[in-house]
Amino acid sequence: MMKTGDCRRTWIETVTLPSPSLSDNTADQERLVGVLQKRLGCPNVILDLDLVAILPAMLRQWDHALRCALIRDRDTWHVCGLSGMTDPQPLCGLAIDLGTTRIVLSLLDLESGQVLQEDAFDNPQGVIGPDVLTRVHYVDEEDGLTHLNRLVIDGINDMIAVLCQRAAIGRDRIVLLALAGNTTMTHLFMGLNPRWIIREPYIPVVNRPGIPPAARLGLDVAAGARIVIFPNIGSYFGGDLIAGILYSGLDRREETALLVDVGTNAEVVLGDRNWLIACAGAAGPALESGVSRIGTTARPGAIDQVRIRGNDRRFELRTIENAPPVGICGSGVIDLAAQLFASGMIDIQGRFVPSACGARLVAEGDEQRLVIAAADTTASGQALTISQVDLDSLIRSKAAMYTILETITEAVGMTPEQLSTFFVAGTFGAFIDPRSAITIGMLPDLPLDRYHSLGNSSLEGAKTVLREPESLERVDDIRDRITYMELNVNQAFMNRFSAAKFIPHTNPGRFPSVTLPGAANPASA
Amino acid sequence: MMKTGDCRRTWIETVTLPSPSLSDNTADQERLVGVLQKRLGCPNVILDLDLVAILPAMLRQWDHALRCALIRDRDTWHVCGLSGMTDPQPLCGLAIDLGTTRIVLSLLDLESGQVLQEDAFDNPQGVIGPDVLTRVHYVDEEDGLTHLNRLVIDGINDMIAVLCQRAAIGRDRIVLLALAGNTTMTHLFMGLNPRWIIREPYIPVVNRPGIPPAARLGLDVAAGARIVIFPNIGSYFGGDLIAGILYSGLDRREETALLVDVGTNAEVVLGDRNWLIACAGAAGPALESGVSRIGTTARPGAIDQVRIRGNDRRFELRTIENAPPVGICGSGVIDLAAQLFASGMIDIQGRFVPSACGARLVAEGDEQRLVIAAADTTASGQALTISQVDLDSLIRSKAAMYTILETITEAVGMTPEQLSTFFVAGTFGAFIDPRSAITIGMLPDLPLDRYHSLGNSSLEGAKTVLREPESLERVDDIRDRITYMELNVNQAFMNRFSAAKFIPHTNPGRFPSVTLPGAANPASA
Repeated sequence: MMKTGDCRRTWIETVTLPSPSLSDNTADQERLVGVLQKRLGCPNVILDLDLVAILPAMLRQWDHALRCALIRDRDTWHVCGLSGMTDPQPLCGLAIDLGTTRIVLSLLDLESGQVLQEDAFDNPQGVIGPDVLTRVHYVDEEDGLTHLNRLVIDGINDMIAVLCQRAAIGRDRIVLLALAGNTTMTHLFMGLNPRWIIREPYIPVVNRPGIPPAARLGLDVAAGARIVIFPNIGSYFGGDLIAGILYSGLDRREETALLVDVGTNAEVVLGDRNWLIACAGAAGPALESGVSRIGTTARPGAIDQVRIRGNDRRFELRTIENAPPVGICGSGVIDLAAQLFASGMIDIQGRFVPSACGARLVAEGDEQRLVIAAADTTASGQALTISQVDLDSLIRSKAAMYTILETITEAVGMTPEQLSTFFVAGTFGAFIDPRSAITIGMLPDLPLDRYHSLGNSSLEGAKTVLREPESLERVDDIRDRITYMELNVNQAFMNRFSAAKFIPHTNPGRFPSVTLPGAANPASA
Repeated sequence: MMKTGDCRRTWIETVTLPSPSLSDNTADQERLVGVLQKRLGCPNVILDLDLVAILPAMLRQWDHALRCALIRDRDTWHVCGLSGMTDPQPLCGLAIDLGTTRIVLSLLDLESGQVLQEDAFDNPQGVIGPDVLTRVHYVDEEDGLTHLNRLVIDGINDMIAVLCQRAAIGRDRIVLLALAGNTTMTHLFMGLNPRWIIREPYIPVVNRPGIPPAARLGLDVAAGARIVIFPNIGSYFGGDLIAGILYSGLDRREETALLVDVGTNAEVVLGDRNWLIACAGAAGPALESGVSRIGTTARPGAIDQVRIRGNDRRFELRTIENAPPVGICGSGVIDLAAQLFASGMIDIQGRFVPSACGARLVAEGDEQRLVIAAADTTASGQALTISQVDLDSLIRSKAAMYTILETITEAVGMTPEQLSTFFVAGTFGAFIDPRSAITIGMLPDLPLDRYHSLGNSSLEGAKTVLREPESLERVDDIRDRITYMELNVNQAFMNRFSAAKFIPHTNPGRFPSVTLPGAANPASA
């Protein structure tokens, strides 16, 4: 849909308008729109009424020389912000990663693309429930939807105030926003009822929210500001993933690559410049701080790396900010399992090997638990331990993950091992050690340099839209090109899943780089 | 800009959507938009967020069968209202004639086009000042603009409530509005500052207000409702005139015709299906209830018709609602002057002829005044009289009017007498007696059947847009086709003006149907 001249460097246009006179007494709005229509080569240029209202005084104050922030919505350009040409304050953009757990905001200069301020806060909807499902059920309560919506909007507005204060700019300088989140979070942000998302046949209210006025959504930013809300493919494949694909460049690559967002749901996209296929499946909570009792989010004191060294199997634990251990986060769990396996403390089915575990294995009621951190080393003074049930849950999660990867690659006639590039998205992906993930058979046995962590790809994708106008077309293009594959949990899937429930796999030939236990001690990391 | 299939009968489309299923689980919005895109043959179909929010429950309540109200804004269709297919309540439109003095609202059924309720009220901005200029100056006071805006919006909202109650429909059934007013009134309605309209070089804020969301302007109507605001040509040629042209059909006629809106400003449009030329000029207040002391608007007791009969020159006065005389309205003044001239009581310069006036001419200080209604017949018990100054003012006004008509027709190589059709717009035009206007030389001496009073053409034009979708394109087309001619008050104009300052004209050959005074008594009407 984009036409000539659309490969813009930024969303800002500077214009100097002819001064009005008796022989050229067209209206202020038409004076500006006329120049922009020519500049953009497009007859549909719209100025929000809020901007029309401030335009006359602004034109006269700045001698008809303006910077205009513009955003394109299909065949129409919207002017979303105005500033004097010589006004020293920048016109700003705001990228928002709307996570179920955390919300990250990044304030940037729309002209330079530079980040001015960035910060995060817990999604205030957490007071209703930590997970998506609890929140969706809450909308059936009286004013539940309004309450959830207010929580997130107020939280974002508060953080906008903080970032603007730190950057010493007015909130009315934020003229363009971009937001990426999963389908349910995006619905709640827009005040749309997500109740049908979780009920057969799983219908979202909207797939393409477009670029509504930010004020319409209750955001305290410039009058006339617009917000790009990333589209979703359906109930279970959200705008955060589209943002990730955009940021990874998967949609423009010559060679087929894969992107995975590891969490309670494993969301996977496979493709290249010619095609994109996606699927999502439940991987279970074990990969996302869900290990019972000691699982935690990535916070100070969370164990995020585990090494087991020497013949005496010494545990070396690294914690976030080197604080005394409070629990273990997702990446730590994968590390732990890999090290337990490599050191022979668990077998290929993930079961404790008492002879190797030794004194670390302690009885608690009917259960045997493995001590990860002794009581005298932890923040609480209580030992951190995991049970066989925890390990079984982890094995199921990693098996589900690998099975999904196998299923989607097989659907296009590949094996996971043939992938040239493997992107791992999400904050979790940023901390995961691919070597450990390969060791337990969660990720395919690729050379490590094929793994790329994308960090917060949802936030980065949102920034990309604010920085690179041509990327907005890519968002729509990605949205429209993706073939969504329903994961049929049929016999073939279950067979693959069963085979993946071993460490690293029933067929160790698929993981040639993994040293089987007992064969040797693990290499030091 | 309109393409195939745009000759719609109404703005309502009825659609039945395919029911969602596991194999067709697209979002509710896209389900509706997809069907409308096909139906309208246009990829740009937008659903306001307010409508997106109510859509899911509505689809499920009405079993996916809906009526949609649509409005086209250039290349984009906006869904502006939704209703269940079998919902007995109609989707409604509201036409607004936004006059400086009176505001008229007409509530109609968008499907049948039938008027459900119609009423008028005085423009509440009258408390600031009766005329446009006073109000424009008032915006420079603190909160002046907001105050003026609130007055008109609150007034319209109050009348909406009244009309809806009378029609027994909810305000949320009003989904499409159309408003026509002069440039300043339209600015104040939109909250836009009109201060530059009256200052050289006379720049309005906006010429093409487009079709903004009604809620954005503070109107209490359906969420998602849109309002067509008639565009203006410039500071002195407003949307009310565009509405008048639309209603008269001037823009589609084979033969050249003229439309005039008589008031303090005489606004004139000349043209046919191929071209349109317009000009506006000050005609003075005399034609619009501005006769000093006894001038009044058309209200009960206003003298709106005068006949002077017999050799004894008996005055027969008709008043609105037959109430005792309170003053004389614009159409009455023209009638009065024509009858005074025909009966020989004033001469060709408009001066009192004492011998003919007789006892009706009374002295008041230095002044001679003519008694129109004796003290014992009026509402106040005071005689209604006019002075020579009043008559001089009227003569200047009528001369200005004729001069403008002469100037614009001459600009295209015609004379006023060659016009095939002469439309008189405005409520004033509805009451004017063309015979009297010809007698005093205000309007050209055409056969009476060429004169057509349009009534409230501003309101009728607004209704036309609500009833006939194809007329919206005509509005833009009229706006873009009109050549606005600045009236240069040069020597040629002044010469024409001087010649027109006689009754009927210096050149009576231009008014062959007018019997000169003394030649005979006036024919009885």
